[in-house]
Amino acid sequence: MTAPALLAQTFRGPFLENAHLGHAVISDTLGVVEAWGEAEAVVLPRSSSKMIQALPLVASGAADRFGLTEKQLALACASHEGAPEHVSAVADWLSTLDLGEPDLICGPQPSRDTDLKLQMIRDHEVPCRLHNNCSGKHTGFLTLGKFLGAGPDYVDPAHPVQKSCLDLFETVTGLESPGYGVDGCSAPNYATTVAAMARAMAWYATAHTRDDSLSKAGARLVQAMYAWPEMVAGRGRACTLLMRAANQPVAVKTGADGYFVAILPQQGLGVALKIADGTTRAAECAMAAILVKLGVVDAGHPDVRRFLNPDILNWDGLVVGKVQPAASLLS
Amino acid sequence: MTAPALLAQTFRGPFLENAHLGHAVISDTLGVVEAWGEAEAVVLPRSSSKMIQALPLVASGAADRFGLTEKQLALACASHEGAPEHVSAVADWLSTLDLGEPDLICGPQPSRDTDLKLQMIRDHEVPCRLHNNCSGKHTGFLTLGKFLGAGPDYVDPAHPVQKSCLDLFETVTGLESPGYGVDGCSAPNYATTVAAMARAMAWYATAHTRDDSLSKAGARLVQAMYAWPEMVAGRGRACTLLMRAANQPVAVKTGADGYFVAILPQQGLGVALKIADGTTRAAECAMAAILVKLGVVDAGHPDVRRFLNPDILNWDGLVVGKVQPAASLLS
Repeated sequence: MTAPALLAQTFRGPFLENAHLGHAVISDTLGVVEAWGEAEAVVLPRSSSKMIQALPLVASGAADRFGLTEKQLALACASHEGAPEHVSAVADWLSTLDLGEPDLICGPQPSRDTDLKLQMIRDHEVPCRLHNNCSGKHTGFLTLGKFLGAGPDYVDPAHPVQKSCLDLFETVTGLESPGYGVDGCSAPNYATTVAAMARAMAWYATAHTRDDSLSKAGARLVQAMYAWPEMVAGRGRACTLLMRAANQPVAVKTGADGYFVAILPQQGLGVALKIADGTTRAAECAMAAILVKLGVVDAGHPDVRRFLNPDILNWDGLVVGKVQPAASLLS
Repeated sequence: MTAPALLAQTFRGPFLENAHLGHAVISDTLGVVEAWGEAEAVVLPRSSSKMIQALPLVASGAADRFGLTEKQLALACASHEGAPEHVSAVADWLSTLDLGEPDLICGPQPSRDTDLKLQMIRDHEVPCRLHNNCSGKHTGFLTLGKFLGAGPDYVDPAHPVQKSCLDLFETVTGLESPGYGVDGCSAPNYATTVAAMARAMAWYATAHTRDDSLSKAGARLVQAMYAWPEMVAGRGRACTLLMRAANQPVAVKTGADGYFVAILPQQGLGVALKIADGTTRAAECAMAAILVKLGVVDAGHPDVRRFLNPDILNWDGLVVGKVQPAASLLS
């Protein structure tokens, strides 16, 4: 077993303050192209697996049966910030299914859109399940469940929706999953190696070159993500800004606890990384570095620099430190 | 150089999700009693050094000259949550100096007291410097500055207040500091080894046994911290709850980016630890484990368990994982 590698650090003045170790893999469809840390580390990819969890929705024919738009497919792959545009898009989608907020099983989460969050506090309004960052994914689950004629408990691992998700998760990762953990939104989240996850992202990156129906479904999801970057995350968030800053169509997706993946169709490459201590800021920094290394984004772009080399500010707004990626990621 | 050691982990279902490495030292006044990781790692102790930053305030005679109460001394050592009782106590103290909120240089910080924070949002009230978790420390700096007849820029490392702080920091750690970083509140924060910081805490733990004036000043600060645990942090916070849960008088103090110290007068021991990735939840877990090991708190006490072995809940309130300390901390 390889040790995790240094992926990012923070400094305060001249002193190293935090060191973030982890595992990162660049893969093509055949396997590892380059790796840092332990490529075979088995972890939960959390929301970085959302484009896999949305795959049965498209591959089954459910998306076409219910006439889902590209924007709705992007939402099915999203960890959105619960801004008004996300909340209304999910509510509208649910209504086309004759369903509503109570049918979601994702739990309520406060909006991460600052204006909406403050307005809801002032209006004494309680966050609901539509605000949950996973409400698009869950509406995708409900759409598939309706198509399959299955029951309402769609987060049960024995439910046809989750059995489809596991089946296609193992198909695109090319590995049997050793099991699952329950995610923040109550859905099962299947474990796999970082290398298998990167290879799955390479499968997505090359899906547009293949004619089989599963690959066509994957290609539609990738297309939806980079066509609607603001639906996948939101204003000021890493996924949205890095997709917009890219000099070519790419899809990137964060996951909780320091996971991050990228799909690079022009290169036919996939990337997966996990910060072993779970720090999101470090995962964003490491992913930005790998995208710079691969020539997908420019290190000098302001929306890249804010993740690659962000200043650390104190309460008075002074610059007191910085985040920086491990040199090995950029070489 | 020794590698950092595993200090805490989180699990989600059967899967390891996050591993937190770091350095921890139990020390007496002579030196290391037990260590995990690299005892000589040089880091910034951040707010874990507040009882040292308050030492010149007492040792100089300024605290007596201005008739400071024990409660005010606890506030000088605090990272308080900006609850109404903290804000009003700091405002009252400033007024006794004929000073006010604009004289603080700590920057504004939103209150971390939920009720006050929500009320301020509803009232469109902007957080001020009184709400900053360091406002007590800064009022201590202003008190010392007034006593010394020094100028208003008390966070300048060349200011007499900060020169006194550095002088006593080096005295109690027994090491020349290699320099400082600027803290979240704009004050210089001096670096030292984890071992030296633990030894400094042992100096505080034994201060009540010595007759020199510096030791008497240190003993007064320790006494103030454990007499006023709710002033040092606040309701629901680790420092306050662990001090209250202890079966003997102890003082514990968190610092940002995964630092934590403890002063154990009955054993004459000091503890210092740093989570190398900066995760507060892991630092709280590791400190709770060391306090259990040393017989200071009971692992079954609910206010210990919430830091030692907390459940991880998801948005729907389900238990989906747990935090646990490294076995080596408890053995």
